[in-house]
Formats: sequence, structure tokens, C-alpha cells
Amino acid sequence: MPHVSILCGSVSDEEIAKKAWEVLKQHNITYDYQVISAHRDPDKLDEYIQKSDASIFICIAGLSAALPGVVASKTKKPVIGVPVSGKLMGGLDALLSIVQMPKGVPVACVGVDNGDNAAHLAIRILTLTGFL
Amino acid sequence: MPHVSILCGSVSDEEIAKKAWEVLKQHNITYDYQVISAHRDPDKLDEYIQKSDASIFICIAGLSAALPGVVASKTKKPVIGVPVSGKLMGGLDALLSIVQMPKGVPVACVGVDNGDNAAHLAIRILTLTGFL
Amino acid sequence: MPHVSILCGSVSDEEIAKKAWEVLKQHNITYDYQVISAHRDPDKLDEYIQKSDASIFICIAGLSAALPGVVASKTKKPVIGVPVSGKLMGGLDALLSIVQMPKGVPVACVGVDNGDNAAHLAIRILTLTGFL
Amino acid sequence: MPHVSILCGSVSDEEIAKKAWEVLKQHNITYDYQVISAHRDPDKLDEYIQKSDASIFICIAGLSAALPGVVASKTKKPVIGVPVSGKLMGGLDALLSIVQMPKGVPVACVGVDNGDNAAHLAIRILTLTGFL
Amino acid sequence: MPHVSILCGSVSDEEIAKKAWEVLKQHNITYDYQVISAHRDPDKLDEYIQKSDASIFICIAGLSAALPGVVASKTKKPVIGVPVSGKLMGGLDALLSIVQMPKGVPVACVGVDNGDNAAHLAIRILTLTGFL
Amino acid sequence: MPHVSILCGSVSDEEIAKKAWEVLKQHNITYDYQVISAHRDPDKLDEYIQKSDASIFICIAGLSAALPGVVASKTKKPVIGVPVSGKLMGGLDALLSIVQMPKGVPVACVGVDNGDNAAHLAIRILTLTGFL
Amino acid sequence: MPHVSILCGSVSDEEIAKKAWEVLKQHNITYDYQVISAHRDPDKLDEYIQKSDASIFICIAGLSAALPGVVASKTKKPVIGVPVSGKLMGGLDALLSIVQMPKGVPVACVGVDNGDNAAHLAIRILTLTGFL
Amino acid sequence: MPHVSILCGSVSDEEIAKKAWEVLKQHNITYDYQVISAHRDPDKLDEYIQKSDASIFICIAGLSAALPGVVASKTKKPVIGVPVSGKLMGGLDALLSIVQMPKGVPVACVGVDNGDNAAHLAIRILTLTGFL
Repeated sequence: MPHVSILCGSVSDEEIAKKAWEVLKQHNITYDYQVISAHRDPDKLDEYIQKSDASIFICIAGLSAALPGVVASKTKKPVIGVPVSGKLMGGLDALLSIVQMPKGVPVACVGVDNGDNAAHLAIRILTLTGFL
Repeated sequence: MPHVSILCGSVSDEEIAKKAWEVLKQHNITYDYQVISAHRDPDKLDEYIQKSDASIFICIAGLSAALPGVVASKTKKPVIGVPVSGKLMGGLDALLSIVQMPKGVPVACVGVDNGDNAAHLAIRILTLTGFL
Repeated sequence: MPHVSILCGSVSDEEIAKKAWEVLKQHNITYDYQVISAHRDPDKLDEYIQKSDASIFICIAGLSAALPGVVASKTKKPVIGVPVSGKLMGGLDALLSIVQMPKGVPVACVGVDNGDNAAHLAIRILTLTGFL
Repeated sequence: MPHVSILCGSVSDEEIAKKAWEVLKQHNITYDYQVISAHRDPDKLDEYIQKSDASIFICIAGLSAALPGVVASKTKKPVIGVPVSGKLMGGLDALLSIVQMPKGVPVACVGVDNGDNAAHLAIRILTLTGFL
Repeated sequence: MPHVSILCGSVSDEEIAKKAWEVLKQHNITYDYQVISAHRDPDKLDEYIQKSDASIFICIAGLSAALPGVVASKTKKPVIGVPVSGKLMGGLDALLSIVQMPKGVPVACVGVDNGDNAAHLAIRILTLTGFL
Repeated sequence: MPHVSILCGSVSDEEIAKKAWEVLKQHNITYDYQVISAHRDPDKLDEYIQKSDASIFICIAGLSAALPGVVASKTKKPVIGVPVSGKLMGGLDALLSIVQMPKGVPVACVGVDNGDNAAHLAIRILTLTGFL
Repeated sequence: MPHVSILCGSVSDEEIAKKAWEVLKQHNITYDYQVISAHRDPDKLDEYIQKSDASIFICIAGLSAALPGVVASKTKKPVIGVPVSGKLMGGLDALLSIVQMPKGVPVACVGVDNGDNAAHLAIRILTLTGFL
Repeated sequence: MPHVSILCGSVSDEEIAKKAWEVLKQHNITYDYQVISAHRDPDKLDEYIQKSDASIFICIAGLSAALPGVVASKTKKPVIGVPVSGKLMGGLDALLSIVQMPKGVPVACVGVDNGDNAAHLAIRILTLTGFL
């Protein structure tokens, strides 16, 4: 059973995902890594979330970064969102898409391209649970 | 059978929705109006999209405005998105969330709070189809 | 008779136009491609719009991207606008110029440099008309 | 024969136009004032520009403020643009739409809502011509 | 022993804090509420963090919102940051100050003024720990 | 006697100045070119403005681009400002510094890095005066 | 001999100036207060700077806030700039105009509308000098 | 005893620090240079500030640039902040984090990446004190 599920919206986000899993590895935290687009593969994403027994989801996405919010709407577990930088104001589009969630469906947003901190935040949460 | 489905992400967006349906009414276009949050009611939204026989979806949302994109990911019909203004830079968050969709899942974005133009765009599309 | 007219405001926008026509080609949709500046060739643009029998216009422009709006003011057919990225905040100038249209003259804006989605949106509209 | 033509894209811009004509009046400069939308009344605008014998055009518009650019594309006289503030970042949309013109079609942009300076700039130009 | 510590950088942020504690109360989660400025009362803040036995910190701040980051640098527990809106672009200053943390010191940022989601995120974390 | 004075705030702006003088040359308009910083050489700038018999000033500057405004405050002739792009949001700093002038001291702002349009605007003004 | 000179670019900035002088008064620091526009009264400003024997200048301005930079270019004493908020993105125009000075002509910028901190910064500098 | 302490939040900021110390060297001003992260080494930073007998602190940081503000909260000496540019809007995140300080804890912010001006500002302050 992996502790953390790392999801990317696009294969081009893998560099950011790698930052996250490198930190998790250093702390001996197991993870599962998948590339599933919230917009292009909604059914596959639903199924993955339902089947996953990870404690925390790290969702990495650019542009209109819906992935973290969609995951947060389908699970009650903590969801961490990582905005990926792009041409438009260096990633402000992804940042705002991830952080400005409506009341009741929280996403824990970290900095643009900051896959490391997504992992560090997951570690703080897992430490609190006693899993670590 | 309504020509257009008007969806709001929150009851507070109704003022913008009203702009849209007033224009549709003036052109004798039937519509169905619903408030369903993409983030808070994902299953209800799925079901609604599957059952709807509307030709076009007008999706109105603020903040991290995922509604238009989620609808566009679940139907092959045209989806028009209307960003709703808010505190953060006057609605830039909703605008970017709606317009910056990934390749393959298009949303037709109109101006901030511009429910009128969502309806006018729907009319242009329906005219092309010969429905009007 | 082409289904879609693809217009660029400048030859430098051709890379984005190509993204659109590649998608259209894959779906066997005919198109006409022209480079006509709304600001530098207004009369040529008027004449082109009047003569065109395309069902949908895809208008690609950067900076003060007036092309989509001007076309929308001269035809009643659906107009899709594609903002082209540039130095100033990665294309926010073109995005706002295209999307913030006044009431009554709608443009369907897609993401910055997202020629693909302009074509995908056109396909959704053409599918609805039964042309496809 | 008026020295200056003041054009608004919408009746709601009249407050800004008034700032301009008050300054012109103080300097005994004649002007003509019209409300013509570039997007909603393109033919009326064309006709007006062709018939006008004003030396300078002051064009006031908000949102996707195409009016100054369209006028500049149809006349060789100096065109001064005044962006009108709005909800989205206080008028940045209109400012960028007016100032970021393509090479060869210049608009002289002044500050947001700054109808006064449009008139003061016109006065500097008219003084240079010896009209004043 | 409170489950959650709610800290505000200024008494003027209390309205946002209230949103958080109302949600916590509905879920019978105990909390401690304090107003301590990271910039004006650094020593008091240090002492509070050291003595606190809360599982999670919710830190609410505007402008150059250093509070969440400072707390995150002094504890290994999860820290949730809530940016408070202000004059400058509706709170973008606080949002960026909170979310753009350096590698190794994560803050879980939620939306501008969204005290509710800070609490909802805390609940997701506490549920995972089995405390709830 | 040159028709136009082209002033740069820094030698690094010369590429933009060149765009302007190339257009002027094509129209056989004489010009004088100088690099004088408003902030580092205020006295030299004062003296230059007083002695200049140019009809129009084109002022090119980046960052806190004070040059056009300072010139406009020292002459009654038309002043055209060209913002130079830079790291911070692609030149938004220079654009706002140039365009947002107080009432009574107008600067005619053109697009970012758009030296061409500064020259084209000067040509429109000079044509009006009968100099061309 | 006043310790501090407080300059406003416009009478409308007086509310921010008052914040500064109230803090100075509480610390028994003498000050001189003047309203002089850098753009509208450049000669008066020059004369004032030359005659002033204040140790520090606090310059308060909005829009294209040239006042602090112009003062810094005419004196070798420390100059503190206070951006005044306005319609365009809540004062980002004034902030960037003040802070983005060219190399060699520094302005010490404090927060938007933060007259208090201008005074507090002046106090820190005066304390260092031994004047306090 | 160094006149100035130059602190960087990260080794990657050293290029900006070098700009500052080169200017200080040219004026024969002594300085001490350290890399201490406010977020990662808060205790080391506290100790350094307490022991330092520098007259002025120059603090250089990017992203959520807390360093200048934290130093200003722990000393009564003047603190100069230099925002370091990054991906997100070219350093607007660091600029706002540094300049938007709460009342009572002032930071003297200079331009993005402008290490030179931090030194020039320090020189103006030291000149006033009679140290130079």
C-alpha cells in the first residue's frame, strides 16, 4: 500500500513529479505514480481514485489545472496541488486554478513547480498520523 | 427539449445566468437552468450531463472555475464558459481557469460576467445548425 | 466550400494556425487559410468576410488582438479567437483583447497559443450542425 | 469644422469623454462628440471616419477596447486612445487592447480614465500645427 | 489539548479566522485562537509555537504574509496558510507570499479569504490521523 | 533642424531607438538621437530639451521609465513614450510608468518595444502640421 | 531645521502623508510638508530640493509616481517612496514606478499607502545617525 | 566592524549580492556576506542578527522573500530588501513579499535584482551618518 499517490495531468509534468518522488524516496515513503488528465481521462481518474488506498494525493498540473480540485472532489483524503509553470505569467494560471477552490473542497497548494514541497508537506502530514 | 443548458457553479452566480437566459428568451430559445457545483456535486453533474439533451452548455463559475472544463470533458457538445468576477484581480482567476484548457478539451470562453455574450454565442451556433 | 476559415493577423502567427489545420485535416474538415491584419488591411478583411462561405471563423492574433472581434462584428457566424503569446505577461494582452468583447458581439476564446482547441471547438460545432 | 472628434464606444464612457471636452472648451477648441461602437456599429463608424474633417480623433473605450485601433486603421490622422476602467484589474484589459497595436498602425495611448490628458495631448499636437 | 491552532497576523483578520473556527466547531474539533504578528511579535510567536501542542496550525495573514512561513520554519507539524485580501490586486501579495515557499519548508495554501477551506483541510488531515 | 528628437534612457535601449529612426529615414524625416537618463543626468536632459528645436520628442525607457514624463513636464511639444520590455512581467513596469501620467502632462504611449509605432505616430502628427 | 521633508505629488495624497507625520510627531521628529508635483511643477520641485536642509525625503505619489525618483536624482540624501493606491490593480502602477529605479539612483520603497512605514524607516535611519 | 551586512536567502542569489558588494568596495565600505535562509535557518539568522554590529542590513531573496522582513523584525537598524527575479511574473512574488510589510516594521525595497541600488541606498544612509 503506497503512502502517497503522485498524479500528473500531462507527461510533460513528470520533471516536477520527479522532484516529489525523490524527496519521498529519501524518507522511505512508498508512492504510486500515474499520468491521468482530469480533462481528457475523467473516467480513468475516477476509477483510479476509488481504487487507490494512498493516504495522500499529490496532484501536479499546469494551465487550467483542474486535476487537484477534481481529485479533492472525489476523495476525503488530503490533496496537495502543485502548479506547473507555463508561458502565461509564469504559471499564474495554474496557481490560481489550484488554490482558489470553493468552500468545502480544499486543496493544499504549494509553490509553482515546487514538487519538493508537495512531498515535504505530505511527510508532515504522515508524521502526524504516526505512519512515519 | 431545451436548446441550451445553463449551469451555475454556485447560487451566487445566478445574476450572470439571468443575463444569459434573458437573451435566449428574446430569441425564443428554450433552456434549462441548474445550479450544480463541479467540485461539490461531481456525481450529480455527471448524471445531469448524461441525461441532458441540450445542444449547447453554458457554464458559469467563479474562482477556480472548473465547471466548464469538467462539462467539456464529459460531453462532445459545445461548451461555453463564463468567468464570474471576484476579489482577486476582478476575476482573472476564473478567466484563466476557464480559458486555459488542455489540448483536446475546448471551452469557448467569453468575457468576465458576460452572460449576454454566452447566449449570443449560443445563438450563432444554433443558427448555424438550422435550429433557429 | 470550406467548413472553416483560419485567419492570422500576422505571418508570425502561422505556427499556431498550423496546429489548428492539422487537427482539422485529421477530421477531414476543409479549411481556407489567410493572413489578413485587421488593423493593416481592414478593407481586404471586410471583403474576405463578405465573400467567405465558411461556417466558422478561427481568428489567431497577438498583442492588441482585434482580428477575432472585428470578424465577429462583420458576420453572424461563430468566431473562435486564439490569443498568441508575446513578451508582455506571456500573452495576457492578446487574451484580454480577444475575450473581453462587448455585449452582443461574442467571440469564443480558447487558450493562449492553443490552435488545437480552436479546431476542436470548431469540430464540436460542426458536429452539432450535422456537417460531420 | 471641428478640430477634434471625440468618440466613445459606449454611452457609459461619457463621463470620461466629458473630461476631454471640458479641457478642449477651456482652450476654445471645437469638437464633435459621438457614441459609436467599433464592434456593434462598424459600418456607421466607417462612414463617420470617412466624412469627418477633424484633425485628431480621441477614442474612448473599455474592455476589449478596439475603437482606437479600428479608427487608426481607417485614417492617417493622429488617434488618441483612452482606456476606461472596469472590473478586471481596474482596466488593464482596455489599456493593453489600446496600447499594444501592431507596427504601422499607431495609437497614442493615455492613462486609464484620463480623458483630460487625451485633450491635453490633442492641444499639444494642434499647437504644433499652428491651428492654435 | 486543542487539535488546531488558529493564528492571525492582525486583529483585522479575525473575520477570516471566524470562518475557520465555525467549521471546526461544527465538527467538534477543539482549537486555540491567537493574534500574533510574525513581524511585530517574533519572540511571542516563537514561544507560542514551542508551547503549543496543537496538531495543525492555521495561519491567516495579509500583505507580506510571513506568518505561515515563519511558523512552518519553527515546527514540523502541517501549517495551513490563508491569504487575506487587500487593496493590491485583491490579495495577490498575500497569496504569493504564502504559497511561494522555498524547498523544504512547505505551507499548505488555500484560497484568498477562504478560512472555511483551511478548516476543511485540517479536518481531512485530522481524519487521516484517526483523531476524528 | 531635426523634425524629431529620439531620446533613450540607457544605451541598452538603442535597439528600440533604431526601429524608430529606420522608419523616420524611410519617410525622409530628420532626427537627432541622444542617450540621456532622466534619473542620472537630469541637468543634461533639461539643457537638451531647452536647446532642442525638434517638433516632437520620442522617449524610450525601461523599468521606472521616467524619461517621457520628465520631458513632457519640460516642453509643450508632443512627447511619445516607448516602454522597453524587461524581466518584470515583460515590461509592464515601464508601460505603466509611461502611460499613467497625471492630468495636464500627457505622454502619448505606444506598445512595448514598439519603436516603429513611435515613428509612425510622429509621422501622423508631422503630416497634420504640413511639415510632410 | 526639519529632520524630514514630506512631499506629496497631489493634494489627494495628503491622507497618506498624514500617516507619516503622525508617526514622526510621536517621535518628536520635525518635518516640513509640501505638495509639489514632479510632472506639473518641476522647477518648483528643483528649487525646493536645493533649499531644503532636511536629512531625509519622504515622497508620496500615485499613478506614474515619478516624484521619489526625480527627488533621488537631485539629492544625495536618502529618499523614501510611498506608492499611493489607485484604480489600476490597486496601485501596482505607482509601486512599480517607484521601486524599479535604474542603477545608481536608489529609492527606498515601502508598501502601498503605507505612510506609517515611511516614517518608521526614516526613524531607523535618523537613529543610526545619532540625530535621535 | 563592517558597515554593511549582506545576507542572501539562497546561494543562488549570490550574483545579486555581488552587484551590491562591488559597489560597496568601490566606496571603501566594509561588509560581511552570509547566506542564511529565513525559513530554513531561523535560529542561525537570529543569532547572526544579534551578534552583528553592522549599521545596515541588505537582504536579498526570491520567491516568498521573508528574509528582509524577518531581519527588520529583529533589529532596529535600517534593512534594505532586494527581490530576486524568478519564473512567476519575473519576480513579482519576491517584490510584493518584501515591500508590503505591516505598519511598524519597515523594509526599504529596491528594484528586482537591483543589488547595485541596495548598495547605493546604503551609501546614502551611511553618508548621512557621517560614517563616510
